[in-house]
Amino acid sequence: MSGLVVRSVDRADRAVIDGLGAVGVATVHEAQGRTGLLATSLSPIYPGARIAGSAITISAPPGDNWMLHVAIEQLQPDDVLVLAPTSPSDDGYFGDLLATSAMARGCCGLIIDACVRDVRDLTRMGFPVWSRCVHSQGTIKATLGSVNVPIVCAGAAIDAGDIIVADDDGVCVVKRVAAAKVLARAREREANEEERRLRLAAGELGLDIYDMRGKLAELGLKYV
Amino acid sequence: MSGLVVRSVDRADRAVIDGLGAVGVATVHEAQGRTGLLATSLSPIYPGARIAGSAITISAPPGDNWMLHVAIEQLQPDDVLVLAPTSPSDDGYFGDLLATSAMARGCCGLIIDACVRDVRDLTRMGFPVWSRCVHSQGTIKATLGSVNVPIVCAGAAIDAGDIIVADDDGVCVVKRVAAAKVLARAREREANEEERRLRLAAGELGLDIYDMRGKLAELGLKYV
Amino acid sequence: MSGLVVRSVDRADRAVIDGLGAVGVATVHEAQGRTGLLATSLSPIYPGARIAGSAITISAPPGDNWMLHVAIEQLQPDDVLVLAPTSPSDDGYFGDLLATSAMARGCCGLIIDACVRDVRDLTRMGFPVWSRCVHSQGTIKATLGSVNVPIVCAGAAIDAGDIIVADDDGVCVVKRVAAAKVLARAREREANEEERRLRLAAGELGLDIYDMRGKLAELGLKYV
Amino acid sequence: MSGLVVRSVDRADRAVIDGLGAVGVATVHEAQGRTGLLATSLSPIYPGARIAGSAITISAPPGDNWMLHVAIEQLQPDDVLVLAPTSPSDDGYFGDLLATSAMARGCCGLIIDACVRDVRDLTRMGFPVWSRCVHSQGTIKATLGSVNVPIVCAGAAIDAGDIIVADDDGVCVVKRVAAAKVLARAREREANEEERRLRLAAGELGLDIYDMRGKLAELGLKYV
Amino acid sequence: MSGLVVRSVDRADRAVIDGLGAVGVATVHEAQGRTGLLATSLSPIYPGARIAGSAITISAPPGDNWMLHVAIEQLQPDDVLVLAPTSPSDDGYFGDLLATSAMARGCCGLIIDACVRDVRDLTRMGFPVWSRCVHSQGTIKATLGSVNVPIVCAGAAIDAGDIIVADDDGVCVVKRVAAAKVLARAREREANEEERRLRLAAGELGLDIYDMRGKLAELGLKYV
Amino acid sequence: MSGLVVRSVDRADRAVIDGLGAVGVATVHEAQGRTGLLATSLSPIYPGARIAGSAITISAPPGDNWMLHVAIEQLQPDDVLVLAPTSPSDDGYFGDLLATSAMARGCCGLIIDACVRDVRDLTRMGFPVWSRCVHSQGTIKATLGSVNVPIVCAGAAIDAGDIIVADDDGVCVVKRVAAAKVLARAREREANEEERRLRLAAGELGLDIYDMRGKLAELGLKYV
Repeated sequence: MSGLVVRSVDRADRAVIDGLGAVGVATVHEAQGRTGLLATSLSPIYPGARIAGSAITISAPPGDNWMLHVAIEQLQPDDVLVLAPTSPSDDGYFGDLLATSAMARGCCGLIIDACVRDVRDLTRMGFPVWSRCVHSQGTIKATLGSVNVPIVCAGAAIDAGDIIVADDDGVCVVKRVAAAKVLARAREREANEEERRLRLAAGELGLDIYDMRGKLAELGLKYV
Repeated sequence: MSGLVVRSVDRADRAVIDGLGAVGVATVHEAQGRTGLLATSLSPIYPGARIAGSAITISAPPGDNWMLHVAIEQLQPDDVLVLAPTSPSDDGYFGDLLATSAMARGCCGLIIDACVRDVRDLTRMGFPVWSRCVHSQGTIKATLGSVNVPIVCAGAAIDAGDIIVADDDGVCVVKRVAAAKVLARAREREANEEERRLRLAAGELGLDIYDMRGKLAELGLKYV
Repeated sequence: MSGLVVRSVDRADRAVIDGLGAVGVATVHEAQGRTGLLATSLSPIYPGARIAGSAITISAPPGDNWMLHVAIEQLQPDDVLVLAPTSPSDDGYFGDLLATSAMARGCCGLIIDACVRDVRDLTRMGFPVWSRCVHSQGTIKATLGSVNVPIVCAGAAIDAGDIIVADDDGVCVVKRVAAAKVLARAREREANEEERRLRLAAGELGLDIYDMRGKLAELGLKYV
Repeated sequence: MSGLVVRSVDRADRAVIDGLGAVGVATVHEAQGRTGLLATSLSPIYPGARIAGSAITISAPPGDNWMLHVAIEQLQPDDVLVLAPTSPSDDGYFGDLLATSAMARGCCGLIIDACVRDVRDLTRMGFPVWSRCVHSQGTIKATLGSVNVPIVCAGAAIDAGDIIVADDDGVCVVKRVAAAKVLARAREREANEEERRLRLAAGELGLDIYDMRGKLAELGLKYV
Repeated sequence: MSGLVVRSVDRADRAVIDGLGAVGVATVHEAQGRTGLLATSLSPIYPGARIAGSAITISAPPGDNWMLHVAIEQLQPDDVLVLAPTSPSDDGYFGDLLATSAMARGCCGLIIDACVRDVRDLTRMGFPVWSRCVHSQGTIKATLGSVNVPIVCAGAAIDAGDIIVADDDGVCVVKRVAAAKVLARAREREANEEERRLRLAAGELGLDIYDMRGKLAELGLKYV
Repeated sequence: MSGLVVRSVDRADRAVIDGLGAVGVATVHEAQGRTGLLATSLSPIYPGARIAGSAITISAPPGDNWMLHVAIEQLQPDDVLVLAPTSPSDDGYFGDLLATSAMARGCCGLIIDACVRDVRDLTRMGFPVWSRCVHSQGTIKATLGSVNVPIVCAGAAIDAGDIIVADDDGVCVVKRVAAAKVLARAREREANEEERRLRLAAGELGLDIYDMRGKLAELGLKYV
C-alpha cells in the first residue's frame, strides 16, 4: 500500500491560489461552509507567515523522513509540502538542510503533523512551517512511504493538488475543483465584512446591524 | 437558568483598577493570599499586553457566540469581556469584527476559555486576548446564554464587576469589594521587593537576606 | 534521601562548553547518537536565546522553591540551574528576584520541569528559561530537597557538572566526560552539512547527493 | 484567606438527596438546564458506584492533605467530601487510612480534583472516589487550607451543603436551595423518557416520535 | 455542503465482515499494511466487546446530535454508526434512548469522536461504544449535518459502507472493495502466528525462530 | 551508544523482592522517602495485578520492537521487562506472541513507556502490563537499541537488576542495593498503619491520633 510516488498532480490556477491566500484561513473556511480546517494541534513556528499553494502530500512512517527527499523532487514552484505520519510521531522530520533543498525548488512552506528542528534557521530563511511542536529528535531512513497519495493530516483529508492556505489562524485545505467557487464566495464575504466593520467601528451594535433583538426576545432573553 | 442579561454592574474605582494593572498578575495574586489565578490553559495571543478592567461576564453555549453581541452593549470604557462556555469548546468565538465593535465601546480586552481567530488583525489593532488557543472554526447563533451572571472561567469563579488583571504571566481575578485592600498589600509587597532586588543584584544571597540558614540546618540540610 | 547539598562539582573545560553551545542542540544531539534530549514539554519563555553551561542540579518538592536559594550559593559563572520537582508541579518556582540573584552569581539560564513567572521582567533582563509553562502560582518554603544530586529532568538523567545546551530547538544534556568527544563529532557533522547545504541550495537533490535512488528502488518504490 | 473551618452546614432533605441519586447524573444535569457538571477530567476509580450526598468542601494547598483530617471531623452520615487544590496537583491526597476514617463517620464518597492511592483497598472497602487519576505520590501536612468555604472543583462552583450526585457518567452539583425543584423536573423527565423508550424499542423512529421531519426539510435536508 | 443524506450504501458480504470481526483489530490492521487504525483517543466504554459491521457515517456539528436520529433510519442490521463532529466536541451525543432506537434497527455499535452518557445503561444493554470519553453534557438539535458522506473520524478517512472492526485493541476501518483480500491476508497471518505461538510457548526464542541473530550481529549488536 | 546487551545482571534476594511486592507500591514509595514512582501516564491494562521482580531494561528506538526479542533471551524467572523508547512513541510494541515467549521464560510482567496490543489475550493469559495506552499500531525491526543499560522510563532512572513493584496504584522502582533496607522500613510502616487503621475504624479522628490540633491552632486555623 505504501511505496508509491504519483508524479502527475493537477494544480489549480495560480491566480485562484493567490486569491485564497490573500483572503486568509478564517474567511476561506467560512466560505466553504466551515469545513477544511486542520486541527489546532498544528501551529506556526514563527508569527506572521501567510502562504497558499498546491499540496504535495507525503505519507511517512513514524520517525522516518526518507520520503521528504522523494517528495522534494516532485515540487513545482509555490507548492506546499504536507506530511502525515502513518502513526503519531513527534520526531523532528525536517530542518535547515531540507528547507534549503525545498526552497531551491520553489516550495513555499511545510505543513507537518509531526515536528521540525533548526527553527532559528528556518525563521531566518523565511521558510514557514506549521507543525505539532519543535523537536530536535532525528529520524531514520529505513522504510518506504508514499508521495502524492490521499492522506489525512491533522484530521483533514487532503489530496495532492488541493490548495493549502495557512496563516497565524491555522491551516485550511480547499478541494482543487472547488477552489474558484470558494474564492468567489470568500471575496463576497469580505466585501460584506468591510461595510460592517465600518459601522461597528462607528459604534453601531451587532444587535442592530444584524437585526438580532427580535429573535433574542422571542427566544426569551430577559434584561434585568 | 440561561437567557438573562444583568444590566447594572457595580465597578471598582478606576484608580484602584489601574493600580492593580500596574502591579501585575504575579504580585496581585500573592497579595490576595495566592488566590484568583485562572488556569494556565489560557495564554495571551501576543506578548507584552497588560490590562486591568471590570469584568463583563458571558456564559455561552459551546460553539455559539451570540451572547458576545449582547454583552458588547453592556460594556463601559475599560471593561473586560470574560467568556466561559457552558461545555468545553475550542471554537473561534471572536475575531476582528467583534473586536472592532468591542473597541468602539471602549473595551480593553477579552478573556475567553475557548478560542479566537483573526489573530493577525487583533495584534495589529492592539486588542489583547487571553484564550485557550487560536482556531478559525466559526460559531453559530442559535441558543441563549447569559450576560453578567456569575461564571467559572478557567477554574476561577468570576462575578460581573470583579477586576480582571492580565499580562504575560496570566490572568488573575480580584473580588470587587476586596480590590482596595489587595492593592494596598500589593504595593507594600512591591516596596519590600525593591529593596531586596537591590541587595540580590549586589550579590547578597537569599539565604542571608531571608535568614534561612538556621531553619535549613535545623531541618537537617547537610553540605558534603 | 533528600536534604543534601553537594558542594564540589567537576565541570568541563569552558572552551568545550562554549563549542557545544555554538553548535546548538540539534547537532549536539545527533553527534552523541541521538541521545540526551529533554522532553518537548519544555520550551523557551522567549525566542532566540542560546546557552551552554554546567548543570547545578536541584531536586525540589512539588510547589516548594526553597532549594533554589540553596542552589544559587553553589553557582559559578556560566553555570545553568536545572530543577526537577519530585512530583509533577506547574507552580511558578522562579521569578525576577531569583533571576536577579542568579545573574549576580553569573548564572546563564534556568531549565525547569515546572513553571516560572515575571516573564516580562525575565525577558527584559535577558535571563533565559526553558520551562513547562508560565504560571504566577507562588510556592512555599517548607520542605528540604537536594542540590547537585543526580536528577531526572523532563525525561533525561542529569548529574551536576553535565553540560546543558539549550536554544530554540530545545534542551540537550551532554555527559561531562564525553563532552570533548561529542564536540569533535558535532564539528565534523557541521563541516559535512555545510558542503551539502551549498549543493542543495544550488538545486541538487538529496536523492542524488546521498545516493538514495538505488536503495529506494530496491525496496520497491514505484513512480506512476 | 485560608485557615477557616465553617462548622454549620445547611443540608437538603435526605429524601431529596436520595431522589437525585436514584435519578442519576445525566438526568439531573438536564433537569437543571444543562448546568452543574464537573469536568470529564474526573473519573470513578471503579465502575458501578452511585452516590448522592451533601458536600463538605475542602480547599487544600497543592500536595498537602492536612485539611482532609480537619474535614472528616465535620462529616455527618451520607456526606460527600469534595476537595479542590488551590493550584493544580496530581498527588495522592487520600488512601485507605483516610477512607477508613471517613467511612467510620458515615461518609459516602470523595470527589477530588487531584489523585488518590490504595485503589485496590478502596475498591474492596466499597468507598467510591471520582478523581483525576491514581497516584501513589504522598503529600505533606505543612500549610493550612479551609473547610466548608466556597470552592471551584473541576470547573464547577460548589458550596458546602450543595448536593453532589455521582455515577459512571460523572459528577454533578445541585444547589441546595434548588434541589427539590430539580428533583421534580428530573422525575418528570424520567417519566417522559420511559414512554419514549418503549416506542423506540418497538422500532418507531425518533424522527417520527419527536416530529422532526418537517423542521429538517425546512432547513434544507436533502435525501439522495 | 452539509444537509445531505445518502440513502444507498453498498455493503460488503456479511461473511467477509464477520470474518474480519473474528480476526480482530490488531491482525486486520497488519494485514492491510498497517493502515486504517483510528486514533487511540477512542476507547471502549466497557471491556470485552468485539464488533464488525458496515459504516453508516455521520458528519455532525459540534454539540448537536440531530443527525443521529436521521442516521438511525438508514441503519440495516449489523451496521455500525460512525460519528465525527465538524469541530472538536466532548459533549455527550448519545445515551440509552438513542441506543434503544439503534438496537431496535439492528445496529451493533457506535464509533464516535466525541462522548456518550448513560454508560451504565449502555453496558447493561450490551451496546458497545468506542468514544473519546464519557460526558453527561447534553447536545442541541439546531443545525444540519450529513449522513453517509465521507468523513474523517479520529484521524481515519471513512466512507459509508466501509467495514469497521472494533475490539479492546481499538478501531480499524477496512475499505469495502479491499475487504475480501484483507481477510484472506489476515487469515494467512493468523495461521503463521499459530505455529509460532506453539514454538514460543515451548521456550524457543524469537531470535532463532525469525533467524535474527545474523542480522543483529551484522548491524553491530555487542554482548558484554 | 546503542547496540549493547549486558548479560550479567545482579539481582536482589527473591525473598526481599517478594516482600516488596506484598507491601505494594504506595507503601514502598513512602518507605524510600517518597521516591521511585514512575509517571501516572502508565496504567495497568487490567485491574488487580500485583508484581515484583528484577528489571531487564530495554532502550528501544521509537516504533521498533526488535530489542524485545533480544531482551527475552536475558530473562530469568520472575524478571520484569522494562522498556523505554529513545523518543516518545505510542506504537504497540508488544502483543500475545511476545507475551507467550516472555512467559515461557518466566517473566512476570512488562512496564513500557509506549503501548501494547492484544490486550484481550494478555488479560486471558494473565500477563500484566503497565503501559501508556493500548494501540494496535505495529512496529518495525530495523534499528538497534540496547538491553540492560541504564534507562529513564516514565521519568524514573532504572538500572538492570533494580526491583520493580507494580500494582493498581502504579509502578515504583527500588534500587537493588537499598532493597532490604526499604523493605524493613516498609514493614515498620505497615505495622504502624495497622494499629491506626483500627483506631480510625472505631471512629477516632486523625486530628487526635496524630495530635494535630495544637499545631493547627498555632498556625491560625479558625473554626466559625
